[in-house]
Amino acid sequence: MNSPQDKAKRHAPGKVYLIGAGPGAADLITVRGARLLGEAEVVLHDALVSPEMLAWCPQAELIEVGKRCGQRSTAQLFINRQIVDLAGKYARVVRLKGGDPMLFGRADEELQALEAAGIEYEVVPGITAALAAASAIARPLTKRGVSRSVAFATQAKAADEVDVDADVKADTIVYYMGRDQAARIAAQLIARGKPATTPAWVVEAATTPRQRSHQFTLREMAAGEAAAWMDPVQPSLLMIGEALGQRETEAVPADGRPDAIRAA
Amino acid sequence: MNSPQDKAKRHAPGKVYLIGAGPGAADLITVRGARLLGEAEVVLHDALVSPEMLAWCPQAELIEVGKRCGQRSTAQLFINRQIVDLAGKYARVVRLKGGDPMLFGRADEELQALEAAGIEYEVVPGITAALAAASAIARPLTKRGVSRSVAFATQAKAADEVDVDADVKADTIVYYMGRDQAARIAAQLIARGKPATTPAWVVEAATTPRQRSHQFTLREMAAGEAAAWMDPVQPSLLMIGEALGQRETEAVPADGRPDAIRAA
Repeated sequence: MNSPQDKAKRHAPGKVYLIGAGPGAADLITVRGARLLGEAEVVLHDALVSPEMLAWCPQAELIEVGKRCGQRSTAQLFINRQIVDLAGKYARVVRLKGGDPMLFGRADEELQALEAAGIEYEVVPGITAALAAASAIARPLTKRGVSRSVAFATQAKAADEVDVDADVKADTIVYYMGRDQAARIAAQLIARGKPATTPAWVVEAATTPRQRSHQFTLREMAAGEAAAWMDPVQPSLLMIGEALGQRETEAVPADGRPDAIRAA
Repeated sequence: MNSPQDKAKRHAPGKVYLIGAGPGAADLITVRGARLLGEAEVVLHDALVSPEMLAWCPQAELIEVGKRCGQRSTAQLFINRQIVDLAGKYARVVRLKGGDPMLFGRADEELQALEAAGIEYEVVPGITAALAAASAIARPLTKRGVSRSVAFATQAKAADEVDVDADVKADTIVYYMGRDQAARIAAQLIARGKPATTPAWVVEAATTPRQRSHQFTLREMAAGEAAAWMDPVQPSLLMIGEALGQRETEAVPADGRPDAIRAA
């Protein structure tokens, strides 16, 4: 029972790091996240994580998991099992998730599997897309005297009959969902009393080379203009609120700087 | 008019980087933020930014601005002017702000001043305290089948008569405000129909050596138990929502791992 072979079989399982990759750009991961990637033996990453991000871990075995647009439960169960299995074979396992693990990330199901298996873990936060998009378009999510709350919302699936917004209220609302819902969400917000002139941005693929953004009004979004502008294959955010409007004294200099800022 | 001296006087102003320092720990800034700090000639930083964070910019002149708990308008106006002045003297100016610049950061007023002065800028997002706190307590802000929205809220000032929450509604709500409001907020949420058993966390000084956290119920928070537990001098978050509860199959192993996770 105490032979060296038995000891080897019973060695302590590895540690799993759930790390937020951030919004897309490789250098918008945290310093801690980048360091832990560089020390990992194996990295399970979302399909959305870019090759540039994976340059932080040239030493690691890479396993791509998940789907680009939502995951089925079966796929998530398989990922959970894979993480637990890898922790039995490697000392340092990284699960790299787009954005922040604790926000729309299904990290909870992965943590549940790790806890059930008695595996040690640590969660490293990441920049969620809404924060990155606000920086990219140089518009604040909250504003003194105008907005002092922001909500981030998504929906389980596209169910046309459901009022997706009835349970979300805040000065600024960011929807982590796309094209199909844009007109309906905008119409519902107007019906609930948000002024039709409220600034309504679409930001696609924030911080990546494919980033695009455009400011509509809520009325224009309700009329389908945002959906017509959007690229259905890009991940997108709808950002709605008075704080996101043009700054009062904003002066546009001759060198076209605002575009440069948006592209930065 | 075109003498070298005139040219020197009219040299292009520097570029200003508004950078989110993140929640506290020096390695929870982004890789981009840390790199830009290392290239800065001067760094204006909030008082809450730690000495460890400032180790990213040993070459830079440091200027501490702002107050620990809220800023008066006069102070903010002075900061705006200071940033513009520094951009006239230095090529690379960093304005380092706690958390994320676009969320409760008053970045808008600084951007307005920069735009009015025609100074180029770039905003680099940071990990906001709510995301860091969720990672620290290993509880998700959203959860499949339970919660699909989260709101972050604060208030202009402590006005006891005002219903601070009437305009915020989401499955999970994080309040960037402290001790004085905890009981009142919890009582209002119960009055509006949130179950009194809803998990209600307090997280203080997330990711710093002073981090503490405790899970209450909404009923306990309404009864003043959270306020009694809290340290009035620490920055704190109130985090309320079903997603933040104990995981169903959570097994507590004999080695006391959950505490270690919370301290991580």
